[in-house]
Amino acid sequence: MKNSIGREIPKEVINERSLFQGAFFKEEEIKKVAPIIKPVKPSHNKLLSTIEEAIIKCGLKDGMTISFHHHFREGDYVLNMVVDIIAKLGIKNLTLVPSSLNNVHSSIIEHIKNGVITKISTSGLRGKLAEEISNGLMEEPVIIRSHGGRARAIENGDIKIDVAFLGAPSCDEYGNASGSRGKGNCGSLGYAKIDALYADKVVIITDSLVEFPNMPASILQNNVDYVVQVNSIGDPAGIASGATRYTKNPKELLIAEYCSKVITNSGYFKDGFSFQTGTGGSSLAVSRFLREEMKKQEIKASFALGGITKPMVEMLEEGLIKNIFDVQGFDLSAVNSIDKNLMHHEIDSSFYANPHNKGCIANKLDVVVLSALEIDTDFNVNVITGSDGVVRGASGGHCDTAACAKLTVIVTPTIRGRIPCIVDAVNTVVTPGESIDVLVTELGIAINPRRNDLIEKFKGIDIPIYTINELKEKVESIVGIPDNIQYDDKVVAIVEYRDGSIIDVIKKVK
Amino acid sequence: MKNSIGREIPKEVINERSLFQGAFFKEEEIKKVAPIIKPVKPSHNKLLSTIEEAIIKCGLKDGMTISFHHHFREGDYVLNMVVDIIAKLGIKNLTLVPSSLNNVHSSIIEHIKNGVITKISTSGLRGKLAEEISNGLMEEPVIIRSHGGRARAIENGDIKIDVAFLGAPSCDEYGNASGSRGKGNCGSLGYAKIDALYADKVVIITDSLVEFPNMPASILQNNVDYVVQVNSIGDPAGIASGATRYTKNPKELLIAEYCSKVITNSGYFKDGFSFQTGTGGSSLAVSRFLREEMKKQEIKASFALGGITKPMVEMLEEGLIKNIFDVQGFDLSAVNSIDKNLMHHEIDSSFYANPHNKGCIANKLDVVVLSALEIDTDFNVNVITGSDGVVRGASGGHCDTAACAKLTVIVTPTIRGRIPCIVDAVNTVVTPGESIDVLVTELGIAINPRRNDLIEKFKGIDIPIYTINELKEKVESIVGIPDNIQYDDKVVAIVEYRDGSIIDVIKKVK
Repeated sequence: MKNSIGREIPKEVINERSLFQGAFFKEEEIKKVAPIIKPVKPSHNKLLSTIEEAIIKCGLKDGMTISFHHHFREGDYVLNMVVDIIAKLGIKNLTLVPSSLNNVHSSIIEHIKNGVITKISTSGLRGKLAEEISNGLMEEPVIIRSHGGRARAIENGDIKIDVAFLGAPSCDEYGNASGSRGKGNCGSLGYAKIDALYADKVVIITDSLVEFPNMPASILQNNVDYVVQVNSIGDPAGIASGATRYTKNPKELLIAEYCSKVITNSGYFKDGFSFQTGTGGSSLAVSRFLREEMKKQEIKASFALGGITKPMVEMLEEGLIKNIFDVQGFDLSAVNSIDKNLMHHEIDSSFYANPHNKGCIANKLDVVVLSALEIDTDFNVNVITGSDGVVRGASGGHCDTAACAKLTVIVTPTIRGRIPCIVDAVNTVVTPGESIDVLVTELGIAINPRRNDLIEKFKGIDIPIYTINELKEKVESIVGIPDNIQYDDKVVAIVEYRDGSIIDVIKKVK
Repeated sequence: MKNSIGREIPKEVINERSLFQGAFFKEEEIKKVAPIIKPVKPSHNKLLSTIEEAIIKCGLKDGMTISFHHHFREGDYVLNMVVDIIAKLGIKNLTLVPSSLNNVHSSIIEHIKNGVITKISTSGLRGKLAEEISNGLMEEPVIIRSHGGRARAIENGDIKIDVAFLGAPSCDEYGNASGSRGKGNCGSLGYAKIDALYADKVVIITDSLVEFPNMPASILQNNVDYVVQVNSIGDPAGIASGATRYTKNPKELLIAEYCSKVITNSGYFKDGFSFQTGTGGSSLAVSRFLREEMKKQEIKASFALGGITKPMVEMLEEGLIKNIFDVQGFDLSAVNSIDKNLMHHEIDSSFYANPHNKGCIANKLDVVVLSALEIDTDFNVNVITGSDGVVRGASGGHCDTAACAKLTVIVTPTIRGRIPCIVDAVNTVVTPGESIDVLVTELGIAINPRRNDLIEKFKGIDIPIYTINELKEKVESIVGIPDNIQYDDKVVAIVEYRDGSIIDVIKKVK
């Protein structure tokens, strides 16, 4: 069966799921869910000596669902540590629902092979684990969910977390947990906050047990069952990767310059506008260009959103941005700012981008700048599979913010390693073309025909404007058309759209 | 049938409710509930012109449940305004579940008579409305709930709010609401926060519509359906009643002095201790005495909790208190501090005192000082009915904090207007004697025999120590024993203990 953007979805993976029918197709009321909790009395002690004890006290059993967050990025020790202990306890057949998985989690391969983990839902997969999964490691397809989609799934019960194991840079003995005031700080705990609210059992794992009450806290004691202190929750260098470096790559700088011109000429660049930019070289450079233009035109932004980086923090401190909404800090500047700046707000992933609450902050975005591994002539974007068809990325907030923002700009070079990035049909659709307004490349820009109003706005702009087909042909004339990737029939991952419908599947590479 | 403290509960009011069997009797797991919500898309407009429009858009119908908060105290215009409009729309048979009701809400009498309001659950009732209800105005008994008990009831579905009408001193067009930055500020919106999380529909009513995003916010946009701007949500003078005045009443000062000595000699007064004191003359004076002693002994408090007053704010700013947890601000000092002081934390009523979450902050209280209208020789406390049997108070956080704190002190004069406050059996039990450790009066103190350890601690203290029976007899020897109040059989109110069991009933006065 085909969904509304023409992607073939095999019948056997559909089950009771719906097929994607458009970004805002779903209209119905949502019955939210809630956890079953064990009341905690005044005399109760939450502090346990070992993770093993916590697993046992939580009653973790075969077939249950466990969650983790990815705020420690490539520095994370928590997920591997906990799953190793679960495996030693002989518990099997678990569903793993972290907010995302990184290179550091390749030891999970072993626990998939030995039957400890049999299902996974995640925003992304990288490295060896991603490769093995693309090669058919798991029987059940992985479910790829966006950050907003994961919050939605947790809030409506599609994901039911039995036990959340949440690493925290600091915590007190009663469960007040923070991303600050520890040995390896991550700043916002935005993805973990939702798990703490909806999991039946919540275990905080920390290497900095601090004086009660550990305030302000990201996760509050009244949502926490147990606290375990360990030697180390992660490698500080991997958790917050130092200062952000500005790109000197001329291609990236040109893309950033074009992107800034697109934004400043779009009609959305005015006092009180809001924006989200990513962490790629071009995206960071966009922030720098915008900053200059904001100063020149005396424009202040209402808010900056998303994964937070140094340029945003600087603009907040300069008064160029009034508010930062931070679901995830990307560098030390963000980590240091959140505890210090009153208008730097920690947000959870539902507030960030859940399509099925009463209005996420992404709904109020004017401009978002997003990257792409590939984009096709229908403007569909792939950020999850590489040119070899292997999973190598994450859905993240891509389809969430793209759907919501008034102006969604994709920045990408036209070619990566002699492989074209503009194609007839992307390997995998994460974000549907209907959400994309402008593609910006080093050769020039292409405007989605759905946004003819922008063609009018960009008259007189000193950037080459093409149709996306023209851009594609230009690129193909340089590097040719690569052979199609050969896939097996086996589905290794289902890509969920933020509303829970299936937008695409990823098949086993041959 | 009698409950465990011997109060007779008529069979017809029990239904499926349980009878009180002890402060921490309930052990079972709790299945929390969650609202049904209508997702809000980016283009959606939440700002409506009138309350009438909001009522209609929320689909309010006969038989539904509506909620309000009491943070505007005697200054509140919102509840009367909304119920008047509901009445004009012809909607009947509603259950009214405000966090509390005050003198200002006497116009509800009319709407009970005309069938608009047929059931009420509240922390308290005062003035004309309380009198009429005590005289049998309603067919259904009112349910009196503590602040923690109300949060519990909302979280487990005993109270299902269809529409919450929440007044906010400031709000933006997308529903980010705050108790600050308006015309009449109330500071913490602690009781309203829970309603916003659990009501199917949430309407914010404000008289200060401010620029988006109104941050930091007490209630977030992703929990709000509609926003209505009105001329005035309340009388600022009634909302925050200016500066707190210290008592000069010698009896109150003596009680406060005795109380301070009880606390400082109890063994709980040490570095890192925590406390809650109320707003009565004696309670406020206690804070002042404690402050001097803390300075002298170089003791710092970990946190102060509860309804927040000027003395606590001063101690926070002096560094004598490290954290304030604020579910409700009682004066302008509290209102002004919450937005300014990083360690002055707004908390919701579940975090405050819900017995059935994973650990409320009341659980961590060392010392609480509470008042009483009456206390009996079993140490049971009445804070809800006057000496004439008429409702004239509120359950508040009384039984919540009394149950949780390591040291619960009741401060009361022995006599009010020639009526003894120490009696054989209180008119109405709100807090069971098992939760009370020490009674402090102007004549001396009485220690609950359950706390023989304290008798040891208080050896050498220069306060007269009596048994509670001795104190009662002393008082009776002065003013005699008043005649018993004459009641009808009709139950006008059920007093719920914080865990949802029935601790007492209030009958119609003859």
